[in-house]
Amino acid sequence: MDKIINYKILDCTLRDGGYYTNWDFNRDLVNTYLNSFNDLPVDYLEIGYRNNPMKEYLGEYFYCPEYVLREARQLSTKKLVIILDEKNVRPEHVEQLLKPCVGLIDMVRIALDPEQFSRALKLAEEIKKMGFEVGFNTMYMSKWKQNTAFLNELKYVDAVADYFYMVDSYGGVYPQDVIDTIQMVKERTSVKLGFHGHNNMELALINSLTAAEHGAEIIDATVTGMGRGAGNLKTELLLTALNARMGLKLNFNALSKTVDGFEKLKQNYHWGTNLPYMVSGANSLPQKDVMEWVSTRYYSINSIIRALENQKAGIIDNERLAEFRPNKKSKKGLIIGGGPTARYHQRAISEFIKAQNDLVIIHASSKNAALYKDINFDQYFSLVGNEGYRLEQVFEDIKNFKGNCVLPPYPRKMGTYIPAAIGGKSYELPSDLFTDKFGDSHTAIALQTALCLGVEELAVIGYDGYQEGSITQKEQSLIYENEYLFKKFVDSCSCSLYSLTPTNYKSLNVNSVYSIIYG
Amino acid sequence: MDKIINYKILDCTLRDGGYYTNWDFNRDLVNTYLNSFNDLPVDYLEIGYRNNPMKEYLGEYFYCPEYVLREARQLSTKKLVIILDEKNVRPEHVEQLLKPCVGLIDMVRIALDPEQFSRALKLAEEIKKMGFEVGFNTMYMSKWKQNTAFLNELKYVDAVADYFYMVDSYGGVYPQDVIDTIQMVKERTSVKLGFHGHNNMELALINSLTAAEHGAEIIDATVTGMGRGAGNLKTELLLTALNARMGLKLNFNALSKTVDGFEKLKQNYHWGTNLPYMVSGANSLPQKDVMEWVSTRYYSINSIIRALENQKAGIIDNERLAEFRPNKKSKKGLIIGGGPTARYHQRAISEFIKAQNDLVIIHASSKNAALYKDINFDQYFSLVGNEGYRLEQVFEDIKNFKGNCVLPPYPRKMGTYIPAAIGGKSYELPSDLFTDKFGDSHTAIALQTALCLGVEELAVIGYDGYQEGSITQKEQSLIYENEYLFKKFVDSCSCSLYSLTPTNYKSLNVNSVYSIIYG
Repeated sequence: MDKIINYKILDCTLRDGGYYTNWDFNRDLVNTYLNSFNDLPVDYLEIGYRNNPMKEYLGEYFYCPEYVLREARQLSTKKLVIILDEKNVRPEHVEQLLKPCVGLIDMVRIALDPEQFSRALKLAEEIKKMGFEVGFNTMYMSKWKQNTAFLNELKYVDAVADYFYMVDSYGGVYPQDVIDTIQMVKERTSVKLGFHGHNNMELALINSLTAAEHGAEIIDATVTGMGRGAGNLKTELLLTALNARMGLKLNFNALSKTVDGFEKLKQNYHWGTNLPYMVSGANSLPQKDVMEWVSTRYYSINSIIRALENQKAGIIDNERLAEFRPNKKSKKGLIIGGGPTARYHQRAISEFIKAQNDLVIIHASSKNAALYKDINFDQYFSLVGNEGYRLEQVFEDIKNFKGNCVLPPYPRKMGTYIPAAIGGKSYELPSDLFTDKFGDSHTAIALQTALCLGVEELAVIGYDGYQEGSITQKEQSLIYENEYLFKKFVDSCSCSLYSLTPTNYKSLNVNSVYSIIYG
Repeated sequence: MDKIINYKILDCTLRDGGYYTNWDFNRDLVNTYLNSFNDLPVDYLEIGYRNNPMKEYLGEYFYCPEYVLREARQLSTKKLVIILDEKNVRPEHVEQLLKPCVGLIDMVRIALDPEQFSRALKLAEEIKKMGFEVGFNTMYMSKWKQNTAFLNELKYVDAVADYFYMVDSYGGVYPQDVIDTIQMVKERTSVKLGFHGHNNMELALINSLTAAEHGAEIIDATVTGMGRGAGNLKTELLLTALNARMGLKLNFNALSKTVDGFEKLKQNYHWGTNLPYMVSGANSLPQKDVMEWVSTRYYSINSIIRALENQKAGIIDNERLAEFRPNKKSKKGLIIGGGPTARYHQRAISEFIKAQNDLVIIHASSKNAALYKDINFDQYFSLVGNEGYRLEQVFEDIKNFKGNCVLPPYPRKMGTYIPAAIGGKSYELPSDLFTDKFGDSHTAIALQTALCLGVEELAVIGYDGYQEGSITQKEQSLIYENEYLFKKFVDSCSCSLYSLTPTNYKSLNVNSVYSIIYG
């Protein structure tokens, strides 16, 4: 191999890409991958994890059984690498986990939280004894500066590791941060340095080149950037850059072949950066959380940012409200959901409402609230995430808002926007909810509100469930949550529950709104 | 607007994104876009081009008729911008093109090739007279250093422009290049500088931040990076970075809304970088050409790179071969294409071949060549792009290769790989081809080879054309090309042409291989 660069390149597509495929990859793709890399100027291939057995299903490259290692060893002319997750592996596991690797695997890496650095040193010692090269993939580099305990122990890494990696876990560091971190590390150890960059801010290439320029001796990358969340430095980008800038000889046909294979996979899994990943990168926030908050929960991206800003400023991100302990009780309740049937059957529902003597209306969503604005019964509103903005839109005259708002119990995960005009009409639920999960969802709050109000017979409308046609992942998780909540409610609460409108929820009984004859 | 940054931001999503949509955008999306930006810390919105009428269809934001400008002006609170393409606009057009913009548009930009800098200065003078701010979007910044004529004239820009933009047309400059270019420009003019980055190498963010840090006073970006080829700096990335780093106040809900709109569009148009765009960026090569070479032509990415390397080294990228002027003529020919019917009907085709007295076999593709290896008639092979590699695979014993290879006329666009063993058996076509277009395609070479061989009756097999199910864009263009070539051949050559196997090509007659009774 013509090498005009004085550092090594490690491709970890199968290992880091496995987060998307549960570590199973089509055999043809793996063969293409291994064969192509035989013709590419890359030094190491990390093919997966070795792990103790877990309860859930995890695939081929999460465990890398011996026959998998053997096949890879036969196909590949490169140095092969596996990685251990420090949080799950102790020194006493090393013998069993790594014995099958001897003679097949060249380097064993350890993925570690710097908080566990001393524990990782002991693990490394065991690995080193077996004759492997050892790499430390040390996470959260953007937070090292504050971690003096870890920095003080850094010097011990020299004895047990061949490479010490700075991992930009959040994908939010800038070239200058890379330079500063390298200097900070170099003052404490003389181990060879590595860099593993994430691409949330599209800085993986420039950060990696900067690391190499300032003395890093090994750089990680993955084909098409495949990897957890926003993904990694793209191998093809690094190699193309080095080809044009440094004259690194490059077989573009081989590169193109393996890129094509993973591009096809990308059409199913959609890795790569996007606005939520940028936000998590820019603010050193776990991308898993941001993605969940944005995509399957109810928080607006603004409220996430506000929560972040509060966190940074040391402000507790939600205020203590008066607890919801209503004196007035009602035997009968109606929860209004956001589904179209609450609009479609409005006339019948209005007749149903008129026929009642005693009823409380609970709006799980304010989506259909305008339709039922002028009803004389008491009205309550679930207030989570975005809902405050919706309320302002629905009730243009919000100063004269007559309802009450109910929020999840304190402390809430995320600041909830409460329009100023309804501040005095907002309450938080007590902490003892009927449900152990999804307690901050619209439906959980609505159901709990009914319980707090002493409701014994509870009707719902506008909970339509699965509809024909395709639904988004967001809709899917919402339906799953609601199904869970309805079942929990029916199983554990002494309150009857039924839907007046058509529904596909299996846990809901139905009493058609048209079947209720008011004499 | 809270501004803690000392430079302006210009969003040009509609103008630069129009390259993908032919400058037509759904009205709702445009409204979302304009409304969202009212809540975002961006100073200018470039909504499109103004252009003299063209022959082909180009949409709303390519011409920006007055009512479009007026609508945008009503919806937006931002400064509005249009751009002129210097190559199509002369000073005498300015009055007509820009009069409708007066009072609606704040800045007029000029997109220009630095070769036309003096012409652009005159254009700018006319624009300035009408009272607009003027921006110079000067392309190809990676090549300025060599362009002394342009550099010498730079000083004249002060008098006629408010902003002078460095455009990284190829998306291949690095932060240090940005710094060097700024210095080079600042030595020659005191006009305010701007930067317009492309994202081929995922360097648009770091280059833009670097430009701003070194004195650029305006930065371009587009939502989701929508823009020609690999696209631009992503507005959401720039704003998220500035929010986290500089405390720029940012309404993420507004940002998220407009990003969502364009993300949906991206699912149809797929802008963003990929390996060919990286190659063009890294090597300052027009991405339009690279994309065409890679996607719809027959050149391997390796041969493109080799051609590039030759170009750089001043080596002519293809050699002169002996011209194809065969003495031996044949009345009858058979072209074998790459389609599956050439395999499916192999038995019948072999019978057909056996029944002939005099025949030449011409392989347009070597895909099916192995099946017909042992035939005793003379065989010719179209040799373009990748085909040499395929030949080596098909004929393992290539040293005993008995065929002849035919290449496109000299000079060829791209170096063609000729396996050493068949160097003496390779010829180039004379320059007078039967076709004015696609002369370097497999099929054109095969047809021209037949003509050179004096063929009067030409059969083809394995030209299947459109099949059921979805086909790739690459297949589509190939089919379009073949259709064009067959039609041209039938219309202009005195040689009969028909297919022996099923075909969906409209320009091919069919004589079923089973209808020819040898008796």
